[in-house]
Amino acid sequence: MDWDTVLSEVCIETPSKIVLFVMDGVGGLPVEGKTELESAQTPHLDKLAKSSVCGLTDPVFMGVTPGSGPAHLALFGYDPTRYLLGRGILEALGIGVSVGEKDLVARGNFATLQGEVVVDRRAGRIPTEENEKLCRKLNEAIHPIQGADISLFPGKEHRFVLKVSGDGLSDSLTDADPQKENKPRTYTTATAKEAEPTAAIINAFLDQATRVLSGTPKANTVLLRGFSKHPSLPTMRRRFKLKPAAIANYPMYKGLAKLVGMEVVPVGQEPEDLVKALEKNISAYDFFYVHYKKTDAAGEDGNFIEKTKAIEEADRIIPRILACHPDVLVVTSDHSTPSVMKGHSWHPNPFLLYARTAFPDSAARFTERECAHGFLGRFPAVYAMPLMLAHAEKMKKFGA
Amino acid sequence: MDWDTVLSEVCIETPSKIVLFVMDGVGGLPVEGKTELESAQTPHLDKLAKSSVCGLTDPVFMGVTPGSGPAHLALFGYDPTRYLLGRGILEALGIGVSVGEKDLVARGNFATLQGEVVVDRRAGRIPTEENEKLCRKLNEAIHPIQGADISLFPGKEHRFVLKVSGDGLSDSLTDADPQKENKPRTYTTATAKEAEPTAAIINAFLDQATRVLSGTPKANTVLLRGFSKHPSLPTMRRRFKLKPAAIANYPMYKGLAKLVGMEVVPVGQEPEDLVKALEKNISAYDFFYVHYKKTDAAGEDGNFIEKTKAIEEADRIIPRILACHPDVLVVTSDHSTPSVMKGHSWHPNPFLLYARTAFPDSAARFTERECAHGFLGRFPAVYAMPLMLAHAEKMKKFGA
Repeated sequence: MDWDTVLSEVCIETPSKIVLFVMDGVGGLPVEGKTELESAQTPHLDKLAKSSVCGLTDPVFMGVTPGSGPAHLALFGYDPTRYLLGRGILEALGIGVSVGEKDLVARGNFATLQGEVVVDRRAGRIPTEENEKLCRKLNEAIHPIQGADISLFPGKEHRFVLKVSGDGLSDSLTDADPQKENKPRTYTTATAKEAEPTAAIINAFLDQATRVLSGTPKANTVLLRGFSKHPSLPTMRRRFKLKPAAIANYPMYKGLAKLVGMEVVPVGQEPEDLVKALEKNISAYDFFYVHYKKTDAAGEDGNFIEKTKAIEEADRIIPRILACHPDVLVVTSDHSTPSVMKGHSWHPNPFLLYARTAFPDSAARFTERECAHGFLGRFPAVYAMPLMLAHAEKMKKFGA
Repeated sequence: MDWDTVLSEVCIETPSKIVLFVMDGVGGLPVEGKTELESAQTPHLDKLAKSSVCGLTDPVFMGVTPGSGPAHLALFGYDPTRYLLGRGILEALGIGVSVGEKDLVARGNFATLQGEVVVDRRAGRIPTEENEKLCRKLNEAIHPIQGADISLFPGKEHRFVLKVSGDGLSDSLTDADPQKENKPRTYTTATAKEAEPTAAIINAFLDQATRVLSGTPKANTVLLRGFSKHPSLPTMRRRFKLKPAAIANYPMYKGLAKLVGMEVVPVGQEPEDLVKALEKNISAYDFFYVHYKKTDAAGEDGNFIEKTKAIEEADRIIPRILACHPDVLVVTSDHSTPSVMKGHSWHPNPFLLYARTAFPDSAARFTERECAHGFLGRFPAVYAMPLMLAHAEKMKKFGA
């Protein structure tokens, strides 16, 4: 018996409320002896830490740097090595393309063809505006192929998302991308019998698109990779008996929340906006995923000071979150983004759980170092969900 | 998808260098309040610990005392409960028998037969010299059986290794050993259809050997157990994109290193020899397994003082290892060998990871107690490899 089965047996619906406050990429590395969290003035988080149980989480497993997809799935209680999200689906979520159960998506590139050879896989990184124009042109020119609707959604520069909607589509397809420059253009191939009709649709689209684009100087063909169907994840309602809401601003996080069956409450990106949405919706749901992006954005920019400020801004809304009287409040991150590394890293996330039922440890602040000595120790992030459910008394005894 | 698949997706080749310094059996238990590591003067390791991230590892899982095989496989990033090494193969590696993909090996005993009954399974523990003579005699007398070459390699006292080389051999065989004294001698039986020809070869060998030995007073028959084929482990190059070298002196460790595809750099057993070999080869490889045996040998002898000295000797080469500028240096052990226990134990290994990308914790020395409070916490040793790869920036992001 795996832990999915344990959870489905023990979860119960109760009126208690859980708030999961994700400060994206908040964990860091010391610069002149202090991390971003250690440098920030965080009186409210400090006070909270003193009456919470703390720890450090590994999103996937020790050493693995996760993308936002696997990192969030883990926090939502889905083993990220078991529930895999294709590259296509993540790209689609990232630019806000809604993906339904019948849809197939892929990451696309505009590229440059000379004869039958791909000479530039990125079409000289055309401006985003040109990309938008080309997507419009293709959407107008290309009609349904064998009953499947085809649409393109522009991303940045040469990138777009292709969405194919129809019955019986399969993602058992190889990339239609030579991967290297100066190789002939390639078609997709079905890697399973049932994907053959889908491969025919995709290949017909490739030919049509190349014909439509034939006059364009740089972007005169398209490449496709990372074909993914909608991943059918069990919903949080079915899995945990929760009625969950996402308070998130960016497409990627809204998309991930939808995949696990959360209702998305649209908001701005300021801490104020997040807490207002929480206050407004607190009675309507029993689980709130609140996503704060600024910490990660500053970390990605390598801006230590900006990340520190973003942490201080978030700290100011803690009293208002507490005033909503959640039975459980978790403050943590999906992954670390040390500003010295200018990107996601494998370092564990500080984790704080505040609840009437928690055993407070000696952590005096919400920092990497203080959390390292918390009673929760170092644990896989996928256990965040059972811990939240338990402290909200939403889990029955397992076995008699 | 399990973590093998995660690793194969994220590993990349880079010029960064990893040194894994294994002080065999270094972990111990306190005697009059201090362990061997705590009693030793280790100024260099102490200094290193202060700028490293530390923890404690369990080689297999909590409570399991591992042999050198499983303990090393874990450190090399191979789950020791999944990649199993037969007793025969470990015995063969231990005495330096090279085992190829077509070879079948087994542990052998010289034994005493009276009529058809085995009266002494160890032939009165005959001297090693007599064992060597008998192996030579059998190697001369026994010719290939059904196309398979047969050779015996003497071990200590009554023990030897049998190697059978040929096509289509199988290790699905029961032991040809009554296990207890005063039982009739037994033949091997195939436990799978395809092992039947191999069983016939082994049983023909047993009869021939017993005939050749019939005149000998004590050692007049042989017993065989732990039949093992060469375990085909994926190489470290394929699995982790590494170019690994083993700096090891003893046959067992050289053999284990070869099984995972390391190139073996032969050396002496003094710390000086190890570091010289590292200095000489540092530019030719990107992963170095450096094995130091003295700590384990002293522990096995129950010699606390000797083990302390062995630790101090190893400490003296730390500056020279650092002078090779590894991007990641790990100091740890395969298993603990407390001198009070005179053997391997299940106690966890102190683990220290030094890297520019590491988050230094408060460990002030490289000891069991200090490592217990390290940020890495207590973790399965199989994660040592992803941690080393991550800190050497040899792993890409998992998922988008």
